[in-house]
Amino acid sequence: MDTWTRKLRMGMVGGGQGSFIGGVHRMAAALEQQTELAAGVFSRDADNNRATGAQLYLDPARVYDSYTDMAASEAALPADQRIDFVSIVTPNVSHFDIARTFLQAGVHVVCDKPMTYTLDEAEELVRIVEDAGLVFALTHNYTGHPMVRQARALFRSGQMGPVRKVIVEYLQDFLATPHEKLGMKQAEWRTDPEQSGIGGTIGDVGTHAFNLLEYVTGDPVREMCADLSTFLPDRTLDEDVNALLRLEGGGKGLLTASQIATGEENGITLRVYAEHGAIRWAQENPNYLDFWRVDEPRQTLTRAQGYLDAHAAESGRIPPGHPEGYLEAFAQIYVGAITAIRRHLDGRPLPIDAYDFPTVHDGLRAMQFIYKAVESSQKGAAWVAL
Amino acid sequence: MDTWTRKLRMGMVGGGQGSFIGGVHRMAAALEQQTELAAGVFSRDADNNRATGAQLYLDPARVYDSYTDMAASEAALPADQRIDFVSIVTPNVSHFDIARTFLQAGVHVVCDKPMTYTLDEAEELVRIVEDAGLVFALTHNYTGHPMVRQARALFRSGQMGPVRKVIVEYLQDFLATPHEKLGMKQAEWRTDPEQSGIGGTIGDVGTHAFNLLEYVTGDPVREMCADLSTFLPDRTLDEDVNALLRLEGGGKGLLTASQIATGEENGITLRVYAEHGAIRWAQENPNYLDFWRVDEPRQTLTRAQGYLDAHAAESGRIPPGHPEGYLEAFAQIYVGAITAIRRHLDGRPLPIDAYDFPTVHDGLRAMQFIYKAVESSQKGAAWVAL
Amino acid sequence: MDTWTRKLRMGMVGGGQGSFIGGVHRMAAALEQQTELAAGVFSRDADNNRATGAQLYLDPARVYDSYTDMAASEAALPADQRIDFVSIVTPNVSHFDIARTFLQAGVHVVCDKPMTYTLDEAEELVRIVEDAGLVFALTHNYTGHPMVRQARALFRSGQMGPVRKVIVEYLQDFLATPHEKLGMKQAEWRTDPEQSGIGGTIGDVGTHAFNLLEYVTGDPVREMCADLSTFLPDRTLDEDVNALLRLEGGGKGLLTASQIATGEENGITLRVYAEHGAIRWAQENPNYLDFWRVDEPRQTLTRAQGYLDAHAAESGRIPPGHPEGYLEAFAQIYVGAITAIRRHLDGRPLPIDAYDFPTVHDGLRAMQFIYKAVESSQKGAAWVAL
Amino acid sequence: MDTWTRKLRMGMVGGGQGSFIGGVHRMAAALEQQTELAAGVFSRDADNNRATGAQLYLDPARVYDSYTDMAASEAALPADQRIDFVSIVTPNVSHFDIARTFLQAGVHVVCDKPMTYTLDEAEELVRIVEDAGLVFALTHNYTGHPMVRQARALFRSGQMGPVRKVIVEYLQDFLATPHEKLGMKQAEWRTDPEQSGIGGTIGDVGTHAFNLLEYVTGDPVREMCADLSTFLPDRTLDEDVNALLRLEGGGKGLLTASQIATGEENGITLRVYAEHGAIRWAQENPNYLDFWRVDEPRQTLTRAQGYLDAHAAESGRIPPGHPEGYLEAFAQIYVGAITAIRRHLDGRPLPIDAYDFPTVHDGLRAMQFIYKAVESSQKGAAWVAL
Repeated sequence: MDTWTRKLRMGMVGGGQGSFIGGVHRMAAALEQQTELAAGVFSRDADNNRATGAQLYLDPARVYDSYTDMAASEAALPADQRIDFVSIVTPNVSHFDIARTFLQAGVHVVCDKPMTYTLDEAEELVRIVEDAGLVFALTHNYTGHPMVRQARALFRSGQMGPVRKVIVEYLQDFLATPHEKLGMKQAEWRTDPEQSGIGGTIGDVGTHAFNLLEYVTGDPVREMCADLSTFLPDRTLDEDVNALLRLEGGGKGLLTASQIATGEENGITLRVYAEHGAIRWAQENPNYLDFWRVDEPRQTLTRAQGYLDAHAAESGRIPPGHPEGYLEAFAQIYVGAITAIRRHLDGRPLPIDAYDFPTVHDGLRAMQFIYKAVESSQKGAAWVAL
Repeated sequence: MDTWTRKLRMGMVGGGQGSFIGGVHRMAAALEQQTELAAGVFSRDADNNRATGAQLYLDPARVYDSYTDMAASEAALPADQRIDFVSIVTPNVSHFDIARTFLQAGVHVVCDKPMTYTLDEAEELVRIVEDAGLVFALTHNYTGHPMVRQARALFRSGQMGPVRKVIVEYLQDFLATPHEKLGMKQAEWRTDPEQSGIGGTIGDVGTHAFNLLEYVTGDPVREMCADLSTFLPDRTLDEDVNALLRLEGGGKGLLTASQIATGEENGITLRVYAEHGAIRWAQENPNYLDFWRVDEPRQTLTRAQGYLDAHAAESGRIPPGHPEGYLEAFAQIYVGAITAIRRHLDGRPLPIDAYDFPTVHDGLRAMQFIYKAVESSQKGAAWVAL
Repeated sequence: MDTWTRKLRMGMVGGGQGSFIGGVHRMAAALEQQTELAAGVFSRDADNNRATGAQLYLDPARVYDSYTDMAASEAALPADQRIDFVSIVTPNVSHFDIARTFLQAGVHVVCDKPMTYTLDEAEELVRIVEDAGLVFALTHNYTGHPMVRQARALFRSGQMGPVRKVIVEYLQDFLATPHEKLGMKQAEWRTDPEQSGIGGTIGDVGTHAFNLLEYVTGDPVREMCADLSTFLPDRTLDEDVNALLRLEGGGKGLLTASQIATGEENGITLRVYAEHGAIRWAQENPNYLDFWRVDEPRQTLTRAQGYLDAHAAESGRIPPGHPEGYLEAFAQIYVGAITAIRRHLDGRPLPIDAYDFPTVHDGLRAMQFIYKAVESSQKGAAWVAL
Repeated sequence: MDTWTRKLRMGMVGGGQGSFIGGVHRMAAALEQQTELAAGVFSRDADNNRATGAQLYLDPARVYDSYTDMAASEAALPADQRIDFVSIVTPNVSHFDIARTFLQAGVHVVCDKPMTYTLDEAEELVRIVEDAGLVFALTHNYTGHPMVRQARALFRSGQMGPVRKVIVEYLQDFLATPHEKLGMKQAEWRTDPEQSGIGGTIGDVGTHAFNLLEYVTGDPVREMCADLSTFLPDRTLDEDVNALLRLEGGGKGLLTASQIATGEENGITLRVYAEHGAIRWAQENPNYLDFWRVDEPRQTLTRAQGYLDAHAAESGRIPPGHPEGYLEAFAQIYVGAITAIRRHLDGRPLPIDAYDFPTVHDGLRAMQFIYKAVESSQKGAAWVAL
């Protein structure tokens, strides 16, 4: 089938000069050499838009002025030219409308997180994706790490027993400095509720922690008691989150996220203590998974070794001891999305539960998490059901 | 003065064969060669008591049948023979009465933690110690580590700025196995409310975490929301604690303690993120203190280096790179207590705020912490003021 | 200029199915989105060659039967179609002839290491590259790591003082199992002197260690005493190397490389102790550089921070705390080569000492190192001048 | 028998104010509460000697002016008063004569390392110890670590297979500063051949590394090629050592020791790669032993766990996760010596191969190592047989 004998054509909305995550999506997609960037609208600033397109060697005719124009124009192109999917890398506020526009134009979507600006939008987007019958992938990229997938496999295998205790962290100090007052674009929109939504840190990094926890354990959070804080003057969104969790399976947990944790870079760590074993994974050195059992020597599993779960082992690309990092894990989300899109183009679409990447349902779940955390905190950090 | 030209005479209550902490106190005291063990009652089991005394090369005449007998008999000995202080290393339930008995007999006291069986006893003990005017030292031993003292010095110095976020952990898996059903004495009394009091893990290890946090930051916990859990059948006391904290100074925090955290040994770690810097200390490799500031290289301070605070530097005994551990830190508490006792014997008693060890007030504070944590948890993990 | 407004066209020799390093070169080149793969000969096995070409979405007309055919055919294509450079990823034995063929056809070259099969070839290749006046880049990829470049910058800055002691290691256990008897292609040629040359481990990984040492310190090895060993039966090439070093500047050192170091994956570490400071870098967690000075707190520098040397800081692509790994460092070599090739195409070629990647001279130096190490070892591990 | 119902009486030669190792021996001996310090001569400086004795609460009558006086006077005391053994903690130059004097007076000896000033003395001392039939213990203290003993047990068990590669390091920066010119006693004698002997760093720390290697592997070094260096002006003894090793069993190795390794404190690490497994141990965090096998998850064994070898498990005193350190390991050497002395006093002396501590033969072996290393280095770092 010809969809397997050519690269997929990728479009992008957002990701102009000065953006961080746009470049990440492009590198992640490029790494596997299964896609070619074919069209985009990179900035509402016309100069930035044009310059970015040129820097990416795009045909100027396919560097559009707006995403509505782009969706319409691309849909009007012959089937062997138009984009197969679009990556949405704008601030949260515009995710929903962009995603809807492309889905309704028949274009598959890869979208950055959090999925939408409001919970209502998230619920609506679930319906739109279902109606469209197209692929929608959400880049909770940490689930692309081979050793995260190995951890998940351990929990799926039954050998861990019930989860008793979870500690999940995402600690940064990115906002310990008032970068939004110093001209940094990425800080500007992240601290602006008009662009980010009701959650600050809880949405920007807290959702990653939450998603990681549920992805690995398969044990959903049932109740939460969240204390959100803001320390720097003139900020309205939360910069720091501490939360108690109770899981469906009876386990308990802690979730903490911060963007004012002095000296932290991207301190994402997950520890899960279950009846028969425990795991520990840390994003900053992600090729290792600690695996502990009572009264036995501690084990460290390493990426790409033969003793790993097959899916985890296949989720990387180079041998053990040659570290993979953030981009490789991000690329793994694209690997999954590309496969799903090819299957769709090929007339054999995968069922959503066979998707090897976070879906619109994960996106909705994370939006519910944001809303419930904010609700809990506004009630003085009271317990709320999730 | 002669009190400085002889070793202090030490008595002990508890610590017979099968005990753990009694031996620790004896080694900690012995390390500095400032004391000699002179008397004791080690077990209510007469054979154990006698055998322990013999093993410790004690004069059988000073291996007593009961602590009341010991207190009375020692007090009746000539001043140049009787014990100067007693170390209390029994289960929590008897701490109060033993301490009272010796204090009223004019004997200084070193006591293991938690200080008493009930909060009422703790309040009463404060009065007794004040009335007696004698030295009372509580072995929250982790405050004896040089690098913990260095951390405290950093916060005292003002260079850290206000505390914004604290994460303190004490994780074990000691009770993940039902050792109390398998004949292990130390597990028996720890899981028995008749001997431990209303708190299990919260008292046994949670109080260490709480004490460490307040010791280092100097910023007291104002409010707490604690979720206590019990997982193993037939247990009534908590085995696991997750708590949100709010500090007097406006910072927020997490405290977690567990004795069912699979694979953990004594995972005590403290992280404090303040406005201008952060510290991280881990008990299992305690000779190092991470010190981070925004936009600067990460630092690791190491024990016994010349750049440390003088008090921290003097709190150890061997050069950098030769690790000190648990016993050396424990010994440091004894160093402080011995100095205070010598000053008292010498007629120049130290004021309590010059004590270089945890006091009866720290003991009371920790008992309040236990009671408030249990209260919070019983209310469904609601916020309580501390 | 138009060379900056299009992607470079890349060719490849080697890297068919079953190869490791070919895929690495393709991913490394793809990551920066500055190249497109346009032609190749991937295997002497026609099926493998064709299948690999198809898998890479190549025009079948540009999947050639031999590199001589490829060089001739590409050279005959119009200037706006033919490849700009070729990547050579075959076993050592054929590097020289392939490189010569393409250089003489006017094609720039990126070549895997060790550079050639024999020392004579290496010397000859230096002349060929000089005569051709084309870009030749050698993929000693570890010099692409930002923190390796930071280490180099520290030594270049003069603040370290003279090097006193160097310890460089490259430890694997890849050949602790007789994979060459079990059908693994990569082990077959590496253990076969007909394909690898006179050096086994010394060439395969020892040269990386040697190159890293000289790259960072800028202090060349003057003398060496090397003890090469072979442990597994039926092997003739060295599997393990221990060597004493003496540097031009008066410092001393150790170099050790092994492919039978049980349990090691790719344990590359470099430690350099100079008069005023020391550095430590480890490839398996490469985003950190330890920097120690006498009597000062230990520092850990982290990738992408503002306090780094500008060149080191620019040698990565994502923020601190999001790990980059092996492929990103490899890509950095390509970044340098692409820049040099663009400058050449643009008529403003860089002088060789402005190249930001290992050159043909580094390749010659490494071949001399292999020959001298083998000579030393054959003399019973006697000192030889380098 | 009464030797088991009393503490042993300990004497000390050396260890006055300003000394480091004397205090270490006293703390190590005190920790187990099996000895009491009864006599000593601590310094040739009479004031220092007297003050040290007073500080240690000694009877002034047993603070002697010279070790000859001490040996004679103690031997003349009644059996229930005189010292059972003496600890020798002076600079190397006087070890031999002091040891001989006490052995000939019938007193057991614990001696610091290196054992003697010259190789001749070491050979003579072996004969003296054998003739005396008394206990002689040498404090190569790192062999007292439980996890070092666990490593030894793994090699003794046969499960590791033949040793292929050893890397042993002892790195300090103690002499990177010219402390001997700044009044530091410990640096003065260590850099003075009149007090240290022909070896500097090779004797002071190199012997520890050498002893550790042979202790763990049980595979003696057969040949060595050592390069000794001196960097600071006005020094004559070596400050840095790099050596290639060949073992009796066919394995190869590296030994490196330094006292000018900028920023290192006491970086003792041992790595041994054998056919079926490898171990790694590091003194600065000594409660862990890495244990790796090909194609299996990496293991970390931790102190005091039930899965350890019985002897290793019994070589500590507190539970897992509560770190033991330098003093506890040092104390373990005393535990062994005390047992041997008690057995001797009891009329049931242990055979020397049942000693659980380094013996006079280990001391001789280490002196041979020093002499051979110096010989090798003086020959330009040529191979010498050991």
